[in-house]
Amino acid sequence: MSTPKHQRTETDALGSVCLPKDAYWGVHTERARCNFAISGITLGQYPCLVSALVQIKHAAAITNGKLGVIEPNISQVIQEACIDIVRQDYTEQFVVDMIQGGAGTSSNMNANEVIANRAIELCGGVKGDYHVIHPNDHVNASQSTNDVYPSAIKLAVLKELDRLLIQMEAFKTVCIEKRDEFSTILKLGRTQLQDAVPMTLGQEFGAYSTTIEEDIARLRESTVHLCELNIGATAIGTGINAPVRFSEHCVEELRRLSGFNLRIAENLIEATSDAGGFVLFSGVVKRAAIKLSKVCNDLRLLSSGPRGGLGEIRLPAVQAGSSIMPGKVNPVIPEVVNQIAYMIMGNDVTISCAAESGQLQLNAFEPVIAFRLLNSVRLLTEGFATLTDKCIRGVEADAEKCRQNLNMSIGLATYLNPEIGYAASSDLAKQALLEGRTISDVAEAYQEGLSRAIDQGLSIAQGQ
Amino acid sequence: MSTPKHQRTETDALGSVCLPKDAYWGVHTERARCNFAISGITLGQYPCLVSALVQIKHAAAITNGKLGVIEPNISQVIQEACIDIVRQDYTEQFVVDMIQGGAGTSSNMNANEVIANRAIELCGGVKGDYHVIHPNDHVNASQSTNDVYPSAIKLAVLKELDRLLIQMEAFKTVCIEKRDEFSTILKLGRTQLQDAVPMTLGQEFGAYSTTIEEDIARLRESTVHLCELNIGATAIGTGINAPVRFSEHCVEELRRLSGFNLRIAENLIEATSDAGGFVLFSGVVKRAAIKLSKVCNDLRLLSSGPRGGLGEIRLPAVQAGSSIMPGKVNPVIPEVVNQIAYMIMGNDVTISCAAESGQLQLNAFEPVIAFRLLNSVRLLTEGFATLTDKCIRGVEADAEKCRQNLNMSIGLATYLNPEIGYAASSDLAKQALLEGRTISDVAEAYQEGLSRAIDQGLSIAQGQ
Amino acid sequence: MSTPKHQRTETDALGSVCLPKDAYWGVHTERARCNFAISGITLGQYPCLVSALVQIKHAAAITNGKLGVIEPNISQVIQEACIDIVRQDYTEQFVVDMIQGGAGTSSNMNANEVIANRAIELCGGVKGDYHVIHPNDHVNASQSTNDVYPSAIKLAVLKELDRLLIQMEAFKTVCIEKRDEFSTILKLGRTQLQDAVPMTLGQEFGAYSTTIEEDIARLRESTVHLCELNIGATAIGTGINAPVRFSEHCVEELRRLSGFNLRIAENLIEATSDAGGFVLFSGVVKRAAIKLSKVCNDLRLLSSGPRGGLGEIRLPAVQAGSSIMPGKVNPVIPEVVNQIAYMIMGNDVTISCAAESGQLQLNAFEPVIAFRLLNSVRLLTEGFATLTDKCIRGVEADAEKCRQNLNMSIGLATYLNPEIGYAASSDLAKQALLEGRTISDVAEAYQEGLSRAIDQGLSIAQGQ
Amino acid sequence: MSTPKHQRTETDALGSVCLPKDAYWGVHTERARCNFAISGITLGQYPCLVSALVQIKHAAAITNGKLGVIEPNISQVIQEACIDIVRQDYTEQFVVDMIQGGAGTSSNMNANEVIANRAIELCGGVKGDYHVIHPNDHVNASQSTNDVYPSAIKLAVLKELDRLLIQMEAFKTVCIEKRDEFSTILKLGRTQLQDAVPMTLGQEFGAYSTTIEEDIARLRESTVHLCELNIGATAIGTGINAPVRFSEHCVEELRRLSGFNLRIAENLIEATSDAGGFVLFSGVVKRAAIKLSKVCNDLRLLSSGPRGGLGEIRLPAVQAGSSIMPGKVNPVIPEVVNQIAYMIMGNDVTISCAAESGQLQLNAFEPVIAFRLLNSVRLLTEGFATLTDKCIRGVEADAEKCRQNLNMSIGLATYLNPEIGYAASSDLAKQALLEGRTISDVAEAYQEGLSRAIDQGLSIAQGQ
Repeated sequence: MSTPKHQRTETDALGSVCLPKDAYWGVHTERARCNFAISGITLGQYPCLVSALVQIKHAAAITNGKLGVIEPNISQVIQEACIDIVRQDYTEQFVVDMIQGGAGTSSNMNANEVIANRAIELCGGVKGDYHVIHPNDHVNASQSTNDVYPSAIKLAVLKELDRLLIQMEAFKTVCIEKRDEFSTILKLGRTQLQDAVPMTLGQEFGAYSTTIEEDIARLRESTVHLCELNIGATAIGTGINAPVRFSEHCVEELRRLSGFNLRIAENLIEATSDAGGFVLFSGVVKRAAIKLSKVCNDLRLLSSGPRGGLGEIRLPAVQAGSSIMPGKVNPVIPEVVNQIAYMIMGNDVTISCAAESGQLQLNAFEPVIAFRLLNSVRLLTEGFATLTDKCIRGVEADAEKCRQNLNMSIGLATYLNPEIGYAASSDLAKQALLEGRTISDVAEAYQEGLSRAIDQGLSIAQGQ
Repeated sequence: MSTPKHQRTETDALGSVCLPKDAYWGVHTERARCNFAISGITLGQYPCLVSALVQIKHAAAITNGKLGVIEPNISQVIQEACIDIVRQDYTEQFVVDMIQGGAGTSSNMNANEVIANRAIELCGGVKGDYHVIHPNDHVNASQSTNDVYPSAIKLAVLKELDRLLIQMEAFKTVCIEKRDEFSTILKLGRTQLQDAVPMTLGQEFGAYSTTIEEDIARLRESTVHLCELNIGATAIGTGINAPVRFSEHCVEELRRLSGFNLRIAENLIEATSDAGGFVLFSGVVKRAAIKLSKVCNDLRLLSSGPRGGLGEIRLPAVQAGSSIMPGKVNPVIPEVVNQIAYMIMGNDVTISCAAESGQLQLNAFEPVIAFRLLNSVRLLTEGFATLTDKCIRGVEADAEKCRQNLNMSIGLATYLNPEIGYAASSDLAKQALLEGRTISDVAEAYQEGLSRAIDQGLSIAQGQ
Repeated sequence: MSTPKHQRTETDALGSVCLPKDAYWGVHTERARCNFAISGITLGQYPCLVSALVQIKHAAAITNGKLGVIEPNISQVIQEACIDIVRQDYTEQFVVDMIQGGAGTSSNMNANEVIANRAIELCGGVKGDYHVIHPNDHVNASQSTNDVYPSAIKLAVLKELDRLLIQMEAFKTVCIEKRDEFSTILKLGRTQLQDAVPMTLGQEFGAYSTTIEEDIARLRESTVHLCELNIGATAIGTGINAPVRFSEHCVEELRRLSGFNLRIAENLIEATSDAGGFVLFSGVVKRAAIKLSKVCNDLRLLSSGPRGGLGEIRLPAVQAGSSIMPGKVNPVIPEVVNQIAYMIMGNDVTISCAAESGQLQLNAFEPVIAFRLLNSVRLLTEGFATLTDKCIRGVEADAEKCRQNLNMSIGLATYLNPEIGYAASSDLAKQALLEGRTISDVAEAYQEGLSRAIDQGLSIAQGQ
Repeated sequence: MSTPKHQRTETDALGSVCLPKDAYWGVHTERARCNFAISGITLGQYPCLVSALVQIKHAAAITNGKLGVIEPNISQVIQEACIDIVRQDYTEQFVVDMIQGGAGTSSNMNANEVIANRAIELCGGVKGDYHVIHPNDHVNASQSTNDVYPSAIKLAVLKELDRLLIQMEAFKTVCIEKRDEFSTILKLGRTQLQDAVPMTLGQEFGAYSTTIEEDIARLRESTVHLCELNIGATAIGTGINAPVRFSEHCVEELRRLSGFNLRIAENLIEATSDAGGFVLFSGVVKRAAIKLSKVCNDLRLLSSGPRGGLGEIRLPAVQAGSSIMPGKVNPVIPEVVNQIAYMIMGNDVTISCAAESGQLQLNAFEPVIAFRLLNSVRLLTEGFATLTDKCIRGVEADAEKCRQNLNMSIGLATYLNPEIGYAASSDLAKQALLEGRTISDVAEAYQEGLSRAIDQGLSIAQGQ
């Protein structure tokens, strides 16, 4: 078989394949590219995972150089290649599908091959001439997919998490601003969609800031567990073919390169087969998504109307609502964030099923775990950013509507309990409902007490 | 070991166990009872599954008698025992946990042993004296758990489905009554919780009847697939140790006994390992639950208030709403039905995971599939019954509130589109909102056209 | 604000925006593009949905022309634009994110605007000059997102389903070939991973063909329900602003254009708010995925080894298995298909949650339903294609290993039951296990009967 | 209406109902019992939730007495009633269904009424004579369902968690024993079900102990978040009708009574509506279940056979495996634990959906959250107990089979990499496979090096 122009040929145990001459990837990547035409989403579309893989290779090259596994000059040029690839845009060279068989071997080999070819190039060699730098023997030295890939997923998640936390903090800050802005707007609290007792609109937004603040804390805590890697475990955790102190040296380098407080798992056999860390983290992400979705449900309820709904707040209009109904403005931003939550709830099930299906010394389904976990983090990041900037920041109160809903509410009868008892209060509430009047009206005799109680109650409400 | 009074001893390959002397179950059941103390829910708490198992044994006894596998008198007394057990209350004899290992062997043996001991009793024998009637050699003759148990699950589901369909029909009927009762009540239609265009309250309830009517049809269709059994497949579908025409004869008898149009699967190997039929059916049940939950969400929204919500309908008060807020009545019935839907959505995941985990010639996880599928059907049955009787039937319209919400709505501007165009209509809608006026007010010049359009529109609305 | 070169300005009720001068999309699409930077997956990446939207617009243009809603020449040029867009590649013009708020309005407007601008171009006009052809008044005439979008999703699914069914048929055919190829290879059947009774390897693959054949039938049946559209329902199902017979005419045209046997839902109010059809279809797709995943689990088990596993079949090697372990070939194709199933199980949860969250007259979360449902169908299509072509077709039997596993099996003792009874057979089985011998060895006395029984049994096994 | 003998009548705002004369529950409970005939599982079947509710009432009675909300003697007798109910068996008095509408009001009222009637009894009064002790005014004083019920769920989970952790510790201990017992048994490690490199059977069980040890740590950490209560929040978190320092006093008492390190949430508005804590905890429980299920999958694989499988371990036989196949022993215990995991994965979806559906100031779906979360904890507890006692403890190694599988394995070629390179090692591995020989055989020339490498490798393997 003669190789067409603009192509080169590479060979492995299964035979030869043609590649674009300029491709940095090689035969293993090319086979995987053809084998796994599944999701259409490539490794390159998750740059955090690419850079995580490359940083691990970088740290391994340093370590292999130090421990004498590879020649110093080879170590050096691999390091340079890694720096290049992280700094510049090589994303189109990471062509394997995010969903792949082989427990991530193809992603690992994609990284090994791109780094090798970039290093060969730096040496003045020709791509594919692996006598210069070999993807397996040099770039992958002392490593196995089974330690590199799960470690890279964790590192990638840590990187993405940084971006997520920034958006969550921004959300929190804007909610606090709204809490303060709306601190004097009295309104009806509702339980089970039924009128309950008074509160302020500020309290409502204050609760949003608190609830997400808790998620920020939980996510930060969870980084501790993500920082535990199995580098040096090689094939199944016994460290076969890796030098004795490879683990600790390599993680030390990686800690320095990445800035994360990484460490080695105590039991490498367990760490190599276990996907539980991803299940746990997905659960924390899911919780944040569920809480954000609840906030969106509330925003849509509170802004329902503008006439035939609760109408207590107005969301900023970001696009025309309807092609047929003039003047209609829809809560499109909360709606899109709700859908993010449903995606993340689905991702959590995918991740759980994949984790449960691990067998013996490895979980072969880590690629879909990585794909969905990184997708969840990314979606949630966009969700917080979008909701904060395009919606919460511009929320306006309809203080008049808030006041109306409150004044009409029979929930105010609760304030009469201490004075006239639960039974008599209930009777007044019933009467008010039947006669279409307010509690103040029907409780004329207790007007004064009621006013005082309401004032006290509200001042407590506002106090919080 | 001497057996205590009130107890008897039975022995199997693993040794001897003590049982209550009066127990109809035997050693295999007793071991399973001890091995699987898991959910606390026994087979006896799912009488539909008990009677399905017993009817299969009944049909098998007839067939085994006919084909000469067992003596005619033994066949006869097993049949009598089966009739007894289905007719009378033996539920406390079915003591194994619904969640069990062994692919249902323990449920099958529980049935075999109870039937054998009841038959022994009918023969004047002593419980446990299996020389008279043997659970395996006689009651289970020509069968295996692997054909009996999945067939029993299907039969049990068919039985439960009958009850469900009755409640769904009742729901449909009551919704149609409400559709007619509310056919002249004009109200605001809403999309995305925002005011849209007019409709009638009757149309809203009419949609509920239609949406559930479709589920009734889908569930009825699905019975076709549930009627396909693998009786006679024995261990793995090859029919080992069953007489050649056992399948067809046994299913014929079972069809007669059960009243369902049962038939034999074409590929018994496939039918024995496949749990896909349960996944499919769970999906249909889940869809009905999701739609019912959406109805409940609507009911809660439409009845929100009484003052600070949409307030277009009133749900019947079935209990006091709050221990602290006088006069509060909560939508407790829709709320409980929502929770049923969440349960069923969870059950569907359980069933899916269990089905996916089948291996080679059998799915060992059929017990949890049976448990959750029957639970879903039962919960949905209670959900429809409860919602129909305790809520929908008593829903009252607040026609005045409906009219108010509609009249204030700027959605009415939609009617001006054909006359003055979308842009001008939008401007009027905006103006109305800003000035706190109605479309009729601001569109004075088009009053007549608007009225006519509204009338036409509404007559169409009501026409449907 | 002066518009930069290479850009044009468009204006809506919220103000003006700049667009690339060459863009076929307009202001509404542009706002949505900015509002929803969520998944990074655009409408254009789902060409089936684009062409479904455009075909609906095409049918609507014909109908609007016929019914006099728009001028004949305008109808004509819109039709031409639609033909163009379906035939040629306009996918890069469909720029809105698949996950979007607004219940699909942005997807609908993206279609309206691209068609309008292409039609304007055909008229010799300048993009953005909507006096010539207007996205709303002409392209969207007699329509609303609320009828167009769900109808387009159904049409898109029908289109994708055709591709899926082709791959499923191919899978079935190859399994039948393997069934015949392996029809004489005797092997051990296994239940609960424990040795059971004999079967042929052909029967195993025959079961795969049957199980997927059933899914093909279920999917075909489900098309009936997907063919039910709510075209003409407009905003909420009352058909406001659509001519009386628009529905039937438009669906008639769409039936002709698409080749699918489409029809109008009986209750348009119900049909507009209901997402149950998608839940049901997702359930059917999920079942097929679960069954395919079980097939993959089996293939991985049967090919486990090559030495320390079951080793009864060999999967074709499609790439090197390990960067560290020489000669290792992994079951990467079944593994990737397992992951597809986990994705689809997750998608089903997403779809269920979105469907359950519909409110009143609309489900605002249809975009994520469309996104995940089309993703499921597409993934499953790739899964069947990949597994069939890259794995099943090349499976080879290790007949010798099959025979060894079978001969050593104590499951053969089952054949002795009829002759010597269950208890005595059990004793022989125990003895064989303890002494490390075969059943034939320990059952010397029954050799002849055993041989005869095995022969009979196997001939039955092969007979199926 | 005259009350029948053995019955008494109680009255609320909706009218009168008849109750069994001896019932400790009252009218509110009775209505709920009739309204919610849903799951058939009563509050009384979750004694941990009953005792949590009663302890809260106990602490509230002390606090109300101290703060002068109720008379000292009333406080005293309520306390005595609470002590009684926790100590003795009143479970049959807690009759409301675990799934209920009303956000838990019925569970709260069931507790209020049983306590009131027991207190009345202690005072020498007649059940139902609430002038003596009133369920709302006395027992429920300063409380609302909306603070009591979520706090009780948390307290109940903490109580159940104690039991779970004991079983998890026992599992860990037994796995460590097995790790040590099997520390010298060399065997084949497997990745992707394919033969990989050597390890010891002890390492396999050591990994199980480690993986569950991590879950123990995560569960213990999560108790911190469960300890945060919203007692004193009353209706919506504003503390309406509760004395100013009620929260802190009541939690102080509850801390003392329960022994858990409870504290008050900082933002009571947020704490009252938020169900995120339950989602998070469910995620942690789910992770442990998934990991346990993976252990069970491994046990079933490793014990597969006894002849035609991996056969490296033997599980204890706990019951006869088959009614048709003599001598068959199935892995019923791991199988039942797998099913527990599928249940818990389903429960997690239920809990997530319920949590996402909370609205405004309350999540009305807490009852199903409580039901499923407590069910998950309980199932997992049984799962660990059952697997530890009935399976892991009795696992035996088949050292001979382990050695055979290892010796035949071509994975040993990995040891040749450093000596002869990856390519040459691959060739030897291929040759061994083709010729049906061992690596030692085909690598005769490298025998010595191979032996040395294997010995070194194994000593490392055993070293861990």
